[in-house]
Amino acid sequence: MTRTAFVSKKLLAAALACGLLAAAPAYAQFAKPQDAVKYRQSAFVVMAASFGRIGAMVQGKAPFDAKAALQNAEIVAFMSNLPWQAFGPGTDLPDSHAKPAIWKEMDKFKADADKLQQMTPKLVAAAKTGKLDEIKVVFGETAKTCKSCHDAFREEL
Amino acid sequence: MTRTAFVSKKLLAAALACGLLAAAPAYAQFAKPQDAVKYRQSAFVVMAASFGRIGAMVQGKAPFDAKAALQNAEIVAFMSNLPWQAFGPGTDLPDSHAKPAIWKEMDKFKADADKLQQMTPKLVAAAKTGKLDEIKVVFGETAKTCKSCHDAFREEL
Repeated sequence: MTRTAFVSKKLLAAALACGLLAAAPAYAQFAKPQDAVKYRQSAFVVMAASFGRIGAMVQGKAPFDAKAALQNAEIVAFMSNLPWQAFGPGTDLPDSHAKPAIWKEMDKFKADADKLQQMTPKLVAAAKTGKLDEIKVVFGETAKTCKSCHDAFREEL
Repeated sequence: MTRTAFVSKKLLAAALACGLLAAAPAYAQFAKPQDAVKYRQSAFVVMAASFGRIGAMVQGKAPFDAKAALQNAEIVAFMSNLPWQAFGPGTDLPDSHAKPAIWKEMDKFKADADKLQQMTPKLVAAAKTGKLDEIKVVFGETAKTCKSCHDAFREEL
């Protein structure tokens, strides 16, 4: 065994521990359609958790914590860029929340995704003011972009 | 119905569409232990997908794309901060990958998490050089932090 092969084998073992097996082969972003579904659902879970924490403050269900609001707004903004890559051709699996309309009206779907991505930096900016009233306004606008996209493209299972 | 109540109802409807129901109540970060498990697993899924894409380049299974490597390194770095908050008391559910050792040796677990968080900015820095050889070195070191933590704390189901 050459030294290179040995190093590669060790690297592989370590990489496997990091989920490499679930990752993309050569040119594709996801090895299997199921991986794409899992990825986008995971991104939404993380985004929704942070959005929900801001929502709890906005609705008076949790005390306002300006620092936590900003941290969560930054997570929402970051995550809002991620799920869309995982709606590629062939990822319209019947057991996902994604309606077939996504692939039939991909331009509209992408426009909806863009609206969210344009809104989330405004949520960060509002959170940076440290003022709950300002956050509340942008939170409401952001929530509307979620809802209009979900109404068109998300199936309740 | 007051105007405030009306606005709040609309806000609630929109917020629900964004996953607010799955979010935290008053002071807790997660409403249910299952939500914490789902959150941390989701964060790991997103992190592993990006780490795996860099790994595919490092291992020569995908062509080297410096821009994609940097984007994915930035995702890994961002995500590496998120899962740990979701290993709170009471979230040691039997159907998760988390070994009970996490809660018995929380200091060691947190130290392992810190190691990863200290490594991932270095992965971003390596990716910024645009040199695959530099990325490969830091990728290997990062993968080792995954593996040593998984060996101690992650159960295969």
